[in-house]
Amino acid sequence: MKKAISVVGGDLRVVRLVEMLIDDGYKVYTYGLEMSEELLNLDVEMCSTVEETVSKSKVVVGPIPLSSDRKNVSMPFSKVKLSLDDFLKVLKGKNLIAGNILESFKDELDKEKMPFIDLLKREEFAVLNAIATAEGTIQIIMEETGRTIHGSKVLVLGFGRIGKVLSKMLDGIGAKVSCEARKDEDLAWAKAYGFDPIDLDDLNGRLGDYEIIINTIPFQILNSERLELVKKDVILVDLASNPGGVDRKVAREKNLKLIWALSLPGKVAPVTSAEYIKEVLYHVLEEI
Amino acid sequence: MKKAISVVGGDLRVVRLVEMLIDDGYKVYTYGLEMSEELLNLDVEMCSTVEETVSKSKVVVGPIPLSSDRKNVSMPFSKVKLSLDDFLKVLKGKNLIAGNILESFKDELDKEKMPFIDLLKREEFAVLNAIATAEGTIQIIMEETGRTIHGSKVLVLGFGRIGKVLSKMLDGIGAKVSCEARKDEDLAWAKAYGFDPIDLDDLNGRLGDYEIIINTIPFQILNSERLELVKKDVILVDLASNPGGVDRKVAREKNLKLIWALSLPGKVAPVTSAEYIKEVLYHVLEEI
Amino acid sequence: MKKAISVVGGDLRVVRLVEMLIDDGYKVYTYGLEMSEELLNLDVEMCSTVEETVSKSKVVVGPIPLSSDRKNVSMPFSKVKLSLDDFLKVLKGKNLIAGNILESFKDELDKEKMPFIDLLKREEFAVLNAIATAEGTIQIIMEETGRTIHGSKVLVLGFGRIGKVLSKMLDGIGAKVSCEARKDEDLAWAKAYGFDPIDLDDLNGRLGDYEIIINTIPFQILNSERLELVKKDVILVDLASNPGGVDRKVAREKNLKLIWALSLPGKVAPVTSAEYIKEVLYHVLEEI
Amino acid sequence: MKKAISVVGGDLRVVRLVEMLIDDGYKVYTYGLEMSEELLNLDVEMCSTVEETVSKSKVVVGPIPLSSDRKNVSMPFSKVKLSLDDFLKVLKGKNLIAGNILESFKDELDKEKMPFIDLLKREEFAVLNAIATAEGTIQIIMEETGRTIHGSKVLVLGFGRIGKVLSKMLDGIGAKVSCEARKDEDLAWAKAYGFDPIDLDDLNGRLGDYEIIINTIPFQILNSERLELVKKDVILVDLASNPGGVDRKVAREKNLKLIWALSLPGKVAPVTSAEYIKEVLYHVLEEI
Repeated sequence: MKKAISVVGGDLRVVRLVEMLIDDGYKVYTYGLEMSEELLNLDVEMCSTVEETVSKSKVVVGPIPLSSDRKNVSMPFSKVKLSLDDFLKVLKGKNLIAGNILESFKDELDKEKMPFIDLLKREEFAVLNAIATAEGTIQIIMEETGRTIHGSKVLVLGFGRIGKVLSKMLDGIGAKVSCEARKDEDLAWAKAYGFDPIDLDDLNGRLGDYEIIINTIPFQILNSERLELVKKDVILVDLASNPGGVDRKVAREKNLKLIWALSLPGKVAPVTSAEYIKEVLYHVLEEI
Repeated sequence: MKKAISVVGGDLRVVRLVEMLIDDGYKVYTYGLEMSEELLNLDVEMCSTVEETVSKSKVVVGPIPLSSDRKNVSMPFSKVKLSLDDFLKVLKGKNLIAGNILESFKDELDKEKMPFIDLLKREEFAVLNAIATAEGTIQIIMEETGRTIHGSKVLVLGFGRIGKVLSKMLDGIGAKVSCEARKDEDLAWAKAYGFDPIDLDDLNGRLGDYEIIINTIPFQILNSERLELVKKDVILVDLASNPGGVDRKVAREKNLKLIWALSLPGKVAPVTSAEYIKEVLYHVLEEI
Repeated sequence: MKKAISVVGGDLRVVRLVEMLIDDGYKVYTYGLEMSEELLNLDVEMCSTVEETVSKSKVVVGPIPLSSDRKNVSMPFSKVKLSLDDFLKVLKGKNLIAGNILESFKDELDKEKMPFIDLLKREEFAVLNAIATAEGTIQIIMEETGRTIHGSKVLVLGFGRIGKVLSKMLDGIGAKVSCEARKDEDLAWAKAYGFDPIDLDDLNGRLGDYEIIINTIPFQILNSERLELVKKDVILVDLASNPGGVDRKVAREKNLKLIWALSLPGKVAPVTSAEYIKEVLYHVLEEI
Repeated sequence: MKKAISVVGGDLRVVRLVEMLIDDGYKVYTYGLEMSEELLNLDVEMCSTVEETVSKSKVVVGPIPLSSDRKNVSMPFSKVKLSLDDFLKVLKGKNLIAGNILESFKDELDKEKMPFIDLLKREEFAVLNAIATAEGTIQIIMEETGRTIHGSKVLVLGFGRIGKVLSKMLDGIGAKVSCEARKDEDLAWAKAYGFDPIDLDDLNGRLGDYEIIINTIPFQILNSERLELVKKDVILVDLASNPGGVDRKVAREKNLKLIWALSLPGKVAPVTSAEYIKEVLYHVLEEI
């Protein structure tokens, strides 16, 4: 008899994972993926209730992130809604693998001694995500601009995980890269890696230099005052999650080209991500 | 009175050029661009005959390449056709700026002592084109694959202008790059630049290693025999112009993912190209 | 009247700093630099006691590191010895700028409310030191080997500050770089930056692959067992301070080529370091 | 019986080659290497005449370059002199492997139908030499300067083989690299590779910007006029063979730091070179 795996919600990464699991000979039970056309022709068991899905296996794979609105399980390929509370109720006795699990949800899992793995807390997956986000950002810029990235002046706001990987790739394509950061440590590293470091205090005087500006900071750094200072035909890419790092109302009023790009890893590298999740999943299956 | 410029045919690069010329205060007369929506709202003089267009200025800007089919002037934004012969007749006494002008056409121009500039013979423009082609190729790969380019094994067939720039950019994004070439010189340089060099004689034994294969050689290198050796889920990108470097019939039969990508510079970097053409154009205008 | 600066001990970086200060119009009083030939022809006031030197200015520049043996002030350009205890006594009321100040010494300074700056705690200086150490290491390898670094297989043990910068530079010269680390985070980053990551657990099986091995870890990682596994003609460079990361006795018995390279920044980049110290010094002078 | 190889003259590369041949079981007969200490303890047959040496094998390995003064065979490890004419006389019926063989000498060889291989005409060896020259240049700069190369402004004069490889490596270490060239093609490529291209016509206005200037052009580009324009503390490295690319008399008068660095491959990468020569040699031995 085939081994069973339960899958609830998720984006294209989870769809790819389901395909791989079936290829590997698993029986896969899903909930919240009924709109995925790719799965329609496969031998997937789409259950009508989350209880049924979860009951089939000791391990439940959930979305990355688990929730986008802090209330419901993230199910972009579904018409129904599943609240975090309802999901929690059916998880009893199960192992959960998902991403960016809310602290309050983790507390509940801990209370019930339910084991879980938060994929985004694993450095390797987080770096993989940064790589995919960087590539997705480059793809967006290429699609949006009539210029070559090579030779363009690009400003990356923030020198965290995404800022580091993105700056390296942009430089690798031939852009002239400046990196804004607040911390001395980050500025020193930006310089060490050969980028032009820009202290937040000096940002305003430099904003007009760039053809492309990418924000990675979860804070509204490009406020109305700073949006006065950018080039009229600049391309702004905001990678920060809600509420974003750019004053969108002002950007619209000034007719600036702004792309708010979220959840890139699921869109641009679902296969690479699915392979990684599969690896973690099989590791868990061996241990239980 | 405004200075006049005549423009005949061309792709998005020429459209962008026309916009820039108008911004700079020129009166622009066009033929063969009537389908370009961008130009409809601008103060462009779209003439009904090529004779009228050409008569307005001593300099005529033509398409890049001048012709795609060796018979007619390349006019993707037009419903009408203009043969090379008819174009030649109206050019008398004019300066032509275009790309990839056929040798036979050049001979005719020379015969009549008509000066011309072949943009693609200018190394700076040719390298700019290679950069734009490389970026366009990367964009296509990003759009077509569910994997990150970072960490992927990529094979570039041919180490000419495009092969060199493309390999460098792929490496800059984090791919593992191999470069196939025939000449010892090219193999030595591939190695010097840090890529894995593959002699054409050893190609067959290596073809199965790659997730992505890009052809830059104007020769059917990926014939039916070699297409037997690639991965089933490989992504093939063919940058060679007609008839291309991949046996398309066999690729289709084997259900391989093949993208035949032509004329990328005009699609992905029309602005950068237009700026360059404008520079050459102004230089010519000063001299006549 | 000229402003005065007091300088006690230090290596070539401090010598270069003294030269720059004189060029800038300062009167410099030194102790513990009498063997520096460069200073003999300059208008430096070499005092016979540390008390006299220190009395001339409110700011005292000391060595980097302050002490190499945890007992005496580091004075490689002097024949006399100055204990940390004696130095502490004369510092009362002064501002000290030095490097790697021992915790116990800092406690004493704090007790007396004496302000100090530990240069090596400043990220920018620490990164500058890592860059200088990396360049010095490359110079040593170039001097010691009859091979090109380009194309060589190099293993870097440890992926901290020096490991990161050194790996990047070696890759920039064309080496095939592997990076050993223990932490998942470091391994993920090594991979993200395009190096071959090696988990400590897999190290033994890989040690025989490398022509050059560089240790940056302050721990005897290349013990007698592991030294059995390296190539006979490997070049070992140990950057770890006393007692070092290589079992030197065993390396000697096995006739391995081992270079124990310490204090590289002072040797290979005294000018760049001196410029940085001067900047910090002038900043302090402005504030007091 | 052991196979025999004849070796005449040569630098450290040839010495390393002799060691390798002995390791591989060959009997090696030498002339013009008697001052090499490394060979004294080995089982080498040092003949007293070039005739005797040459008589022992059908293949004769000569120096790289064959001659430094266009008159005598290059024998830095010998006290005696051997003219090219005398060498030619004894070569009859032999295969010669050497480097940079003069055209007139080649003509003589051709006349007598004597086969030869000019190693420096083989692209792979020429690129290997460029790599070794670039690494040697970096080593020299590191030894001569008290600054880090990282962050320094470096100018490379000439964008041929050495210019290309050297610029890439300097950039890989973190220098800010400008490349001077005359040809549009070279300038376009310098830009494509991410370096700052400088047209010869604009050189004078830029010379004062650089901390390090390296010449690769066999032409006195840094004449007295241009030497007026460089920084007082610039480091000049001249890689051009006699008479060099820098007016040495003027450089000395102005007390500029000038290093004239010749024959770097033999000094910095004799082992890598010897391995390559051995490969070519064995290939020839198989064929005759």
